[in-house]
Amino acid sequence: MDSRISKLSQWMKEEDIDFSFITSPDNVFYLSGFLSDPHERLLGLGVFQDEEPFLVCPGMEKNDAKNAGWNYEIIGYSDTDNPWEFISSAIQKRNQKVSRAAVEKEHMNVERYEAISALFSSAAFVPAEEKLRKLRMVKDDKELKIIREACALADFAIQTGCEEIKEGKTEMDVLAAVEYALKKKGINEMSFSTMVLTGANGASPHGTPGMTKIKKGDLVLFDLGVVVDGYCSDITRTVAYGEISEKQREIYDTVLKAQLAAVDASKPGAACSEIDMTARNIIAEAGYGEYFPHRLGHGLGVSVHEYPSLTSANSLQLEKGMVFTIEPGIYVPGVAGVRIEDDLAVTENGVEILTKFPKELQFV
Amino acid sequence: MDSRISKLSQWMKEEDIDFSFITSPDNVFYLSGFLSDPHERLLGLGVFQDEEPFLVCPGMEKNDAKNAGWNYEIIGYSDTDNPWEFISSAIQKRNQKVSRAAVEKEHMNVERYEAISALFSSAAFVPAEEKLRKLRMVKDDKELKIIREACALADFAIQTGCEEIKEGKTEMDVLAAVEYALKKKGINEMSFSTMVLTGANGASPHGTPGMTKIKKGDLVLFDLGVVVDGYCSDITRTVAYGEISEKQREIYDTVLKAQLAAVDASKPGAACSEIDMTARNIIAEAGYGEYFPHRLGHGLGVSVHEYPSLTSANSLQLEKGMVFTIEPGIYVPGVAGVRIEDDLAVTENGVEILTKFPKELQFV
Repeated sequence: MDSRISKLSQWMKEEDIDFSFITSPDNVFYLSGFLSDPHERLLGLGVFQDEEPFLVCPGMEKNDAKNAGWNYEIIGYSDTDNPWEFISSAIQKRNQKVSRAAVEKEHMNVERYEAISALFSSAAFVPAEEKLRKLRMVKDDKELKIIREACALADFAIQTGCEEIKEGKTEMDVLAAVEYALKKKGINEMSFSTMVLTGANGASPHGTPGMTKIKKGDLVLFDLGVVVDGYCSDITRTVAYGEISEKQREIYDTVLKAQLAAVDASKPGAACSEIDMTARNIIAEAGYGEYFPHRLGHGLGVSVHEYPSLTSANSLQLEKGMVFTIEPGIYVPGVAGVRIEDDLAVTENGVEILTKFPKELQFV
Repeated sequence: MDSRISKLSQWMKEEDIDFSFITSPDNVFYLSGFLSDPHERLLGLGVFQDEEPFLVCPGMEKNDAKNAGWNYEIIGYSDTDNPWEFISSAIQKRNQKVSRAAVEKEHMNVERYEAISALFSSAAFVPAEEKLRKLRMVKDDKELKIIREACALADFAIQTGCEEIKEGKTEMDVLAAVEYALKKKGINEMSFSTMVLTGANGASPHGTPGMTKIKKGDLVLFDLGVVVDGYCSDITRTVAYGEISEKQREIYDTVLKAQLAAVDASKPGAACSEIDMTARNIIAEAGYGEYFPHRLGHGLGVSVHEYPSLTSANSLQLEKGMVFTIEPGIYVPGVAGVRIEDDLAVTENGVEILTKFPKELQFV
């Protein structure tokens, strides 16, 4: 963790920022190793250019923070304390004058912003998000190991879902079986609400799983992810139940071709836009361009959506250690919805595919 | 919904507020009937003293908003639009000069606050939360009907959990069975992360369900809730697996006595503090005062924690239509954790108990 905080401090020196106060649970976890969701209570990490950082958290979580490996100051507060007074003291103790401060402007609420603004009445506040997104974008070996494990569990979840599909089962029946199997393994947190959509439901961008029964001739779309030690996986597979039409098959094959080509194009130095366009062009050439309305993929880590963003406009080049999804899709209303999504890690020369469930069309 | 918006407008007149911009999904739902979680995208409801309100949402959700019964202006925007420009036009169209505006300061982030502040550079911003909390505190018949349904499902979940407890089953096994049964009924959203804690785990305020096996002589604590049509239930029951010790029994009986007395004390005109103290005194007299560290209960509705708050300091008096929990607990480290929680609705003369699973100690 120390090296992550050092990188933030280095950036603060470059940008002439005296104090950063980081409050989103994801970024606090990334910088401190302490994973906590304090709900409406304040959790924050104070970082300086040279002085020792501090963590502020509800008093009853102090030991958890210590056990998570945080070796610097921990300020615990009770529900009757005003944590901002403690924060003010912690800064004074370090003899720091704050004229420029960084906060997460997309996360911090107005009430807290008013409180921290009152502490440094003449300070300018700048956003901390962009730097943290860039820091988090490249994963180290320890992070990759955890994400691999989360991806293996995502594969297992898809397998479980496929085995559950039978005539008359509802989307919710299948979803229930998937999450049941994960919970039996001790996994209680999904990256986002699990999606099981059958037939026409799979073609709706709004699809939420419900009591629709799966019937012969349906394509069934799974989109799910598993959280392991604070890191997310994210997989989509579309499988066939019984005989499907030629049109459905054509759509599937087009998405698969686009997905494989985009994976193939992924390596250090390739621009996100190139990879997006590789898939997009294949889908457009097959005549389905208008039915692929979203970006090709997104980075993945502590958050299920992080940097890099794989859009047709992002010139950012891939580098070793980045982890992201490739998930082209075609959604033809009333006909079929197909999406195929893998998680990938950029290696020295190409990519490691972290999700391994087969992509050739599975008939279940 | 119209009467709710009227009440907000009335308050705005009293407080000389020209414009309210409501952005939390819970409050937007309460005021508009439109239930949506737009994640990082902007969702907002603009309310004036006399002019027609407007809703701003991602373009692809416009139809959902209409279908939810919103009959006023809907401003849809795409990912490449700047929604603040549309908001600015909507206000100009109504010929409104904004010198005092209300926003939810605990919900709105700094980035959006800077955007809205730029629209009305000389305006004062005041918090909207308190008024909305008070509006939401008293439920109408339609809301009560939905909450009753959510409570019935919570009872069913406890019943399912009790049937699943067997030698060697883990907390996660039981949790998996509970949520599986709910999903089979089409229920996919819980009010919060379901808790199943056995033995000493039940006595930890930090308890998260894990792979601990339930064994004879354990008290097993369930705390869970179900969301129905946007409304939450919240129930806690503690049950015995096999023979338990006299000490465990004494703790259970003390909590039950406190819970029943607090329910009995609940009626229109009773102060929240009185009800809290009724339970607290019984627990203190039995010698367990220091082991009951939290408030007696909380309001319940669109949010799982809302007004009224049942603390020893809250002089607020109950009135007909309020819905809240009564949930005393005793947590003796290493010995036992017991909590018993019901959801209640205040009636003309007393309360209706909405959660009906038995409270006499159940041996499963």
